[in-house]
Amino acid sequence: MAADQLSTTLQALADPTRRAILARLSVGEATVNELAQPFAMSLPAVSRHLKVLERAGLVEQGREAQFRPRRLRPEPLRDLAGWLDAYRRHWDERLDRLDVYLKELQAGDADAPRNQDQ
Amino acid sequence: MAADQLSTTLQALADPTRRAILARLSVGEATVNELAQPFAMSLPAVSRHLKVLERAGLVEQGREAQFRPRRLRPEPLRDLAGWLDAYRRHWDERLDRLDVYLKELQAGDADAPRNQDQ
Repeated sequence: MAADQLSTTLQALADPTRRAILARLSVGEATVNELAQPFAMSLPAVSRHLKVLERAGLVEQGREAQFRPRRLRPEPLRDLAGWLDAYRRHWDERLDRLDVYLKELQAGDADAPRNQDQ
Repeated sequence: MAADQLSTTLQALADPTRRAILARLSVGEATVNELAQPFAMSLPAVSRHLKVLERAGLVEQGREAQFRPRRLRPEPLRDLAGWLDAYRRHWDERLDRLDVYLKELQAGDADAPRNQDQ
């Protein structure tokens, strides 16, 4: 199946080092050198990770040509959040059920039937 | 690097068929047979996808032993949404800037300097 944008985004994010690079860029632009330092990684290794992030549209090059700083591009993250929103009611419902159960416990209602979902 | 839970979740979601299976399960439990039908997929192919989703904790087996229906487990999706929330201000800020720019255009302020970020 052809790689769709959402799959490309998820694949790019499915690596802790790439997520750490994004976290660093979320506080401001950084050059490849600056990105490599906290990870004690070689420049080629960082560049490979950046290439994956750039192909997914999660990182772009800034305008200062000399240092070519990278910066975060949030649009794919926004689209992923939009996809996740369709599932939000599922975890909200679970929390609601847990809340009801905890209130039953606090009320000392020891004979209440246990909800096997919790 | 060891596979962390968030990477496992993202990896499991980075496939359009597996996301389609989750979408189906989001409307209710389904057996492997029921899941295979709309995708015109073989049972072993569906089972392989389900195994990836189960390892990631996104799908679990229901209690009806005979048909072993699968159902959605939303917790990893909730955790992913929590991780994404840290980036929400980035796309909100971009939308705010776009909004300001569109209002300038509507005001007929044709001489306003263009914001190169848009």
